[in-house]
Amino acid sequence: MAKEKLVKNITSRDENFAQWYTDVVREAQLCDYSSVKGCLNYLPNGYAIWELIQADLDKRFKETGVENVSLPLLIPEALLEKEADHVDGFAPEVAWVTHGGMERLQERLCIRPTSETLFCDLWARTVKSYRDLPKVWNQWNSVLRWEKTTRPFLRSREFLWQEGHTIHATYEEAEERTIQMLHVYEDCYKETLAIPFVSGRKAEHEKFAGAQDTYTIEALMHDGKALQSATSHFFGSGFPDAFDIKYVDKNNELQSVYETSWGWSTRSIGALIMVHGDDDGLVLPPHVAPVECRVIPIAQHKEGVLDKAYALLDELKKAGYRVKIDDSEKSPGWKFSEQEMLGIPTRIEIGPKDLEKNQVIVVRRDTREKIVVSMDEIAVKLRDILETIQQDMYNRANDFLQSHVDTAVTMDEMAEKFKKNRGFVKACWCGDPECEGEVKYVTGGAATRCLIEDEDMISDKCIWCGKPAKHMAYWGKSY
Amino acid sequence: MAKEKLVKNITSRDENFAQWYTDVVREAQLCDYSSVKGCLNYLPNGYAIWELIQADLDKRFKETGVENVSLPLLIPEALLEKEADHVDGFAPEVAWVTHGGMERLQERLCIRPTSETLFCDLWARTVKSYRDLPKVWNQWNSVLRWEKTTRPFLRSREFLWQEGHTIHATYEEAEERTIQMLHVYEDCYKETLAIPFVSGRKAEHEKFAGAQDTYTIEALMHDGKALQSATSHFFGSGFPDAFDIKYVDKNNELQSVYETSWGWSTRSIGALIMVHGDDDGLVLPPHVAPVECRVIPIAQHKEGVLDKAYALLDELKKAGYRVKIDDSEKSPGWKFSEQEMLGIPTRIEIGPKDLEKNQVIVVRRDTREKIVVSMDEIAVKLRDILETIQQDMYNRANDFLQSHVDTAVTMDEMAEKFKKNRGFVKACWCGDPECEGEVKYVTGGAATRCLIEDEDMISDKCIWCGKPAKHMAYWGKSY
Ligand SMILES: [Zn+2]
Ligand SMILES: [Zn+2]
Repeated sequence: MAKEKLVKNITSRDENFAQWYTDVVREAQLCDYSSVKGCLNYLPNGYAIWELIQADLDKRFKETGVENVSLPLLIPEALLEKEADHVDGFAPEVAWVTHGGMERLQERLCIRPTSETLFCDLWARTVKSYRDLPKVWNQWNSVLRWEKTTRPFLRSREFLWQEGHTIHATYEEAEERTIQMLHVYEDCYKETLAIPFVSGRKAEHEKFAGAQDTYTIEALMHDGKALQSATSHFFGSGFPDAFDIKYVDKNNELQSVYETSWGWSTRSIGALIMVHGDDDGLVLPPHVAPVECRVIPIAQHKEGVLDKAYALLDELKKAGYRVKIDDSEKSPGWKFSEQEMLGIPTRIEIGPKDLEKNQVIVVRRDTREKIVVSMDEIAVKLRDILETIQQDMYNRANDFLQSHVDTAVTMDEMAEKFKKNRGFVKACWCGDPECEGEVKYVTGGAATRCLIEDEDMISDKCIWCGKPAKHMAYWGKSY
Repeated sequence: MAKEKLVKNITSRDENFAQWYTDVVREAQLCDYSSVKGCLNYLPNGYAIWELIQADLDKRFKETGVENVSLPLLIPEALLEKEADHVDGFAPEVAWVTHGGMERLQERLCIRPTSETLFCDLWARTVKSYRDLPKVWNQWNSVLRWEKTTRPFLRSREFLWQEGHTIHATYEEAEERTIQMLHVYEDCYKETLAIPFVSGRKAEHEKFAGAQDTYTIEALMHDGKALQSATSHFFGSGFPDAFDIKYVDKNNELQSVYETSWGWSTRSIGALIMVHGDDDGLVLPPHVAPVECRVIPIAQHKEGVLDKAYALLDELKKAGYRVKIDDSEKSPGWKFSEQEMLGIPTRIEIGPKDLEKNQVIVVRRDTREKIVVSMDEIAVKLRDILETIQQDMYNRANDFLQSHVDTAVTMDEMAEKFKKNRGFVKACWCGDPECEGEVKYVTGGAATRCLIEDEDMISDKCIWCGKPAKHMAYWGKSY
């Protein structure tokens, strides 16, 4: 059968999740590897999702006053080395340019792994007075980190992202911006990607290289592992001080500036696949589906079917839908299965019987529910159906997340929970990375994902060493 | 006076055009150089123009069926070397990555100077059948060429652009696509950037490295020099054959594919500055102006002025304008001069007297014309004024271009024309690059910009050697 022909290429999700993921990425033609180890070709189906995420995030950014810029790809070695923690974090994993044209360079240049150093270098030259503050800038680009192991969207040497960088006159304003951008990310994950999460501050040793605080969004994949899905960093004045960015305030006194940065990458596409996908392939939330609806004529050789299908296509396009038609010679079964593989949220079946009854059949990708809609109402009703899908997808993913959050006060409980029930476990901790390391070893990988700072602690002892607990945290295995 | 304070930083355009250009780029804060020689920081004012150009072009692309993708930044040396002309053209000007992380690489990787090789490498692995054709792909990114001399927007080591790459089953289809994309560029220059041009095929020795035909758009800057403003290339099957891209046709026979590529870069921002700018700074056509109108309250401390100005701002925003207000403590004179420097197409002056008369004053940036508009009509009338400015700017630039196109049949005429009247000169040519070189020497830089193939030749002899003419061409000095 046609359907099986396509789907047989996909491993069952519960049988082998990692293989299922690889299969979906390949069969839905989202991306593939290039001739450069660890670097991806983002194909039209994958890149179109990224374009929708970009448009949505960029709009949210601009509503908060962000301005877009573009800074260079290359960083002189001396610039990378200006802030000690930062260079320690990144120098081991950058690519070095040593020759330009026919000549050997006097100073090596690295390909940006992130651009804090370039922004600070620019601001050190151009920011002089309180009138020049704040700077709230962002760029959409790619960065390169020489990773050893790579997986499509989740970890690759080059990846697409946005990196926002800001400086402010006061500590408070910068801290506020750090949290504000975390909230922008939260809203986008929830409203646009239909992905729930836990979020909060990272533990001390998990912070971004050079940051004072790192806030993270941790989404839960269908296999029970967490994915760090976006981060927002507060640098205080340490990082900009290292670059000697100073401004003259209203009293004519020289002051430090306070810095933030925040990033969201194509990892988010990995999250979409692993939160919403099923054994028939991708399931895209309508808000980031490059095609919201595919029209599939049934018995298209019968008189009037194709004409009516084209008229419908036209009507839906004019009504503002992202809609396509599959008028190929393939069988309906094949067409259904391909539309499901690609994760297109709805298909409209239209055949001779529907013509007689002046109706169409809308089939939801997420539930397979078939909905009969009058031809006269489809241009309005389809929007309702898509919005219902969007909301239902979030609710289902959120039910899954909530049912995979547990608590533990002893190490036995913790070990047991991570054996049976994967997901997040709330547990208390003294803050010592060594304790975390031991827990990680015993549970086969569970570590702190983020601290929980707005709830009462469930214990006053570290789950490993028994010493006084400093933090409660979400623990989880992760990508 | 406030106005002079800003404007005094700009050299007069007719006195020293090159310095005027540099001054405008700096004072309008479009971009500046970074710590990496020849690489630019695109600042918010400059990048916002690029975003509008991108949005416009991308829409035009998608209307012709283009799909966006993203391919890697790095190219293995062996891949760059696969096509002989291409490697000869680019190898001398690429940057080489020799180390990744802590290790020396076994094969050098270059940072893409352009991505034909990566697209062909991908297609060689994935295109098998006529069903896989055509591929009509594009990517927005930056590329790097190790230029020796650089100027903001016009020539820099790293620059932003789009590069479209397509393959087709037939020669004719590929050739058609080459011309189609040239037309898309022409429409965008004319309708969106308000920039007229001449266009056509490049002479043989001026073609893109590896191409069979290169088509170019040549715009005329205010100083009489041409700027190559966008190009579209036809490769035939030579380039894809070098990468062994073959497909099986309907008769089950193995066939070559035919390739095109086409690019438009941030040079276009240089063209905007040099075609439309004046001694008071930038003059942006409304369609690519990040801010279409700036509201400037007059005597803003007087009762009601600021309230009314904010209400107007709000009304215009809701009506879909890109509009901002300058409610700072600076004097109106300073505010006018800053708005003019930035090239904002209109300002609205609103003061106590205007409130009394229920009116505002709209001032055009291009002509300085003051237009009194009733407050009740401004949300509608402003659009008309902006569209008039857009059209007038094109017409003025086109009058300038048309009055700077001349003809020559003898070398004396040619030399005289390039002494007195700069711009384009139509003249005939045998096709020998040596003759072109001599003309270039004698005229101080005039060379063929593109061939003229749809007009009768004005002479049957080469303007230099007197041998039979093969081509008529536009000659001009250029950036
Ligand atoms: Zn402990
Ligand atoms: Zn000649």
